[in-house]
Amino acid sequence: MNDTEIRSYVEAHAARFLQELEALVSLPSISTLPEHADDVRRAAGWLAARISADTGVPAQVVETAGHPLVYGEWLGAPGKPTVLLYGHYDVQPVDPIELWRTPPFAPTVIGDSLYARGAVDDKGPTYAALKALEVLRATTGTLPVNIKILLEGEEESGGQAIAAYVRANPTALAADCALILDTGMIAPGIPTMSYGLRGITYCEIEARGAAGDLHSGVYGGIAPNPIQALCWALAEIKGRDGRINLPGLYEMMRPLSDAERAVFAELETQATQVLQDAAGLAVLPGEAGFGVVERATARPTFEVHGIRGGFTAEGAKTVIPALAVAKVSLRLVADQRSDAVRELLAARLAELQPPGITFTLHNLQGGEAVTFPLDAPPLQAASAALEAEFGRSVQYMREGGSIGVAALFSEVLQLPGVMMGFGLADDNVHAPNEKFHIPNFYAAIRSVAGFLQRYGGGS
Amino acid sequence: MNDTEIRSYVEAHAARFLQELEALVSLPSISTLPEHADDVRRAAGWLAARISADTGVPAQVVETAGHPLVYGEWLGAPGKPTVLLYGHYDVQPVDPIELWRTPPFAPTVIGDSLYARGAVDDKGPTYAALKALEVLRATTGTLPVNIKILLEGEEESGGQAIAAYVRANPTALAADCALILDTGMIAPGIPTMSYGLRGITYCEIEARGAAGDLHSGVYGGIAPNPIQALCWALAEIKGRDGRINLPGLYEMMRPLSDAERAVFAELETQATQVLQDAAGLAVLPGEAGFGVVERATARPTFEVHGIRGGFTAEGAKTVIPALAVAKVSLRLVADQRSDAVRELLAARLAELQPPGITFTLHNLQGGEAVTFPLDAPPLQAASAALEAEFGRSVQYMREGGSIGVAALFSEVLQLPGVMMGFGLADDNVHAPNEKFHIPNFYAAIRSVAGFLQRYGGGS
Repeated sequence: MNDTEIRSYVEAHAARFLQELEALVSLPSISTLPEHADDVRRAAGWLAARISADTGVPAQVVETAGHPLVYGEWLGAPGKPTVLLYGHYDVQPVDPIELWRTPPFAPTVIGDSLYARGAVDDKGPTYAALKALEVLRATTGTLPVNIKILLEGEEESGGQAIAAYVRANPTALAADCALILDTGMIAPGIPTMSYGLRGITYCEIEARGAAGDLHSGVYGGIAPNPIQALCWALAEIKGRDGRINLPGLYEMMRPLSDAERAVFAELETQATQVLQDAAGLAVLPGEAGFGVVERATARPTFEVHGIRGGFTAEGAKTVIPALAVAKVSLRLVADQRSDAVRELLAARLAELQPPGITFTLHNLQGGEAVTFPLDAPPLQAASAALEAEFGRSVQYMREGGSIGVAALFSEVLQLPGVMMGFGLADDNVHAPNEKFHIPNFYAAIRSVAGFLQRYGGGS
Repeated sequence: MNDTEIRSYVEAHAARFLQELEALVSLPSISTLPEHADDVRRAAGWLAARISADTGVPAQVVETAGHPLVYGEWLGAPGKPTVLLYGHYDVQPVDPIELWRTPPFAPTVIGDSLYARGAVDDKGPTYAALKALEVLRATTGTLPVNIKILLEGEEESGGQAIAAYVRANPTALAADCALILDTGMIAPGIPTMSYGLRGITYCEIEARGAAGDLHSGVYGGIAPNPIQALCWALAEIKGRDGRINLPGLYEMMRPLSDAERAVFAELETQATQVLQDAAGLAVLPGEAGFGVVERATARPTFEVHGIRGGFTAEGAKTVIPALAVAKVSLRLVADQRSDAVRELLAARLAELQPPGITFTLHNLQGGEAVTFPLDAPPLQAASAALEAEFGRSVQYMREGGSIGVAALFSEVLQLPGVMMGFGLADDNVHAPNEKFHIPNFYAAIRSVAGFLQRYGGGS
């Protein structure tokens, strides 16, 4: 079997594959909303049944303390490598619902795109990988590598279940690489592999002043103001030059290689254009002295995600609030451990606490940065498959975001991650009108099949 | 008639006066809530009837575009000065209702205090002034000055009706001074007269970045962040030293006299203690180089009243928001015009706008600072009456807050304002468990009667 046979099979079954994906994305498996818990479970059951029926890999729903996992395993290729195939079948909430042009769980094809919540994140790419197994099984009667399939239903809500499962079962999950399809392409038609992910530390900063709200007619000019205190601190921690003022932060970083800098330079013009267009931004401001690609993927960041305090309704109320709260995160790069960075932040906040104000730092989420060696055999095989599919050389990139399981698999199972990207910048991930570029669905099926075949030595 | 006769009459009728006040504060005349519009009207009618019956000043309810005014006039003292007596009969909402120890509209006497919404702000002091007219009328058969009574029902909701009425009727409202009982005492037992009020400019600052929210995994480090931009701007406008960095702001101020500085110095220790105790604050931080009294009453202030932007619910969401909004005000002192200061703020924000962010300033409220000359005859008469009542010399102070009608009467009618204070720092103005110190109710009746008598030349 070769790439041509794969292509023919996918073409012959294209309509059915898309229908199956439509059935999957029509399940409202929103993991953060308790009222959708049954829908999450239904999606898990649906996938386990399809995997067992279509790929020959016996799969089942695995109960956890939270939403279930789907696990399947086929070890019928002795002497061949083992691939741990990961995906997630839960989705983000749909708010603001009024901005959707089609109902989020009534999948709709418009032009080349399938519109639905979860279409690109991550049901489409996940289902493409499963269909690749079907393609290989159907055309060769077997699979070219051993397969362990592990799908989660909590990626959008913290991923506690999979973390516990992986830490509890390192031997059962032993493999040679993890295949993770949850990343994007640098631009349409450009095969992209991600080899690095940023880590994160996400915290809430609470600023407290007086015991209760005060009237600014009486206390204006003499009371501590927690909003003002937060502004001073946040302005101090990240200056107008974009530099993060946490002593020790930059010293922790693993330096970039000249080769990576060269890759960034090559991407710079196109990436800048794509990112500007997708967000409708005329400028991409940030840390002075670094390009867009490096800032977006290989530099630590400090961002304020939310802030609230005092009177925010209609009109004018002259209150000095007792409390203000900000949610902030730092994206981290290799060797910046999330716990250590959180400590830097806590220490800096203690220094920045003005008279009469108490800052408290609450840890909401942490994850570690990872990078994988480009010369590892599975990355080489994936790269070759993508080049065959797209007819041009692969663009390597780091992701600016964090994928918890990539760090988890790396840390607990010592697996390099193969991350072939099929999402586009305008796919509206986590936003209204999420879509998946349908040609990328089929490209993903063929690319994963080609990767597994090459990695198993079959081509 | 002299102060002793006044004292005897008040003592003889003390119980009835308090019962009448209890009837007034039991009317839930919350002007900001449309469902209480009838209650506001009922309070107006109740007052007009009582004024006409008790004081001999014929009064009526005056319709407006909003809540009604109460107006009454008695000009039977030719050759004597005319006093415009102001008060407001509307009250603040009662939220959070669960923090009230007694129902807000079931007036309850505990110890020396009458607990009820509106007890001190402003039904108690207003009604005391009306009772002073009764005392004078009952004991002398006439009034020592001409009286124009103007009560409003929108003080807590913007005061548009009275502003329109005064601007439309400057001749009918012509007087020699305005008596405004809506201020406080520096401490229990210390007769206090306010002779200055701060002005205000209250604005909303809107910061806009991208057209929609962005994911920080993709745009962290490269997108404009409106919350961060607001923090930079607000930290710049008011530094950690408490200084307001709006070029031209301090230059506009009328300088303080040495006499005022001496008054502030005299107040400093006690006022600091009272303000700290009332708010439960260990420190009263603010502009370096100025004392608490000066900062609270005679310096311009910049306060952030509210801020919101991005994700503020439970948990961690890695969004870079499109929008952030802050509500801010500057309290202003004499010669800092609110419009001019708003222009300074707008100009500064334009300078502070970082790349990719648009700041927009919305005007929500403006009011002018006023100060009245301490040697004006009505202020001298009021001062003498207070000294007679309390047996010690009057403490003059400026108010940190703004009283719209004081500026209105000053600007349109050219009236000096007589502001005798009867509220205490722990009276819970605008808060749950609002109260009025009952001895201050009677002191206010006697002091106003004494003032009118002295001002009319009768003592």
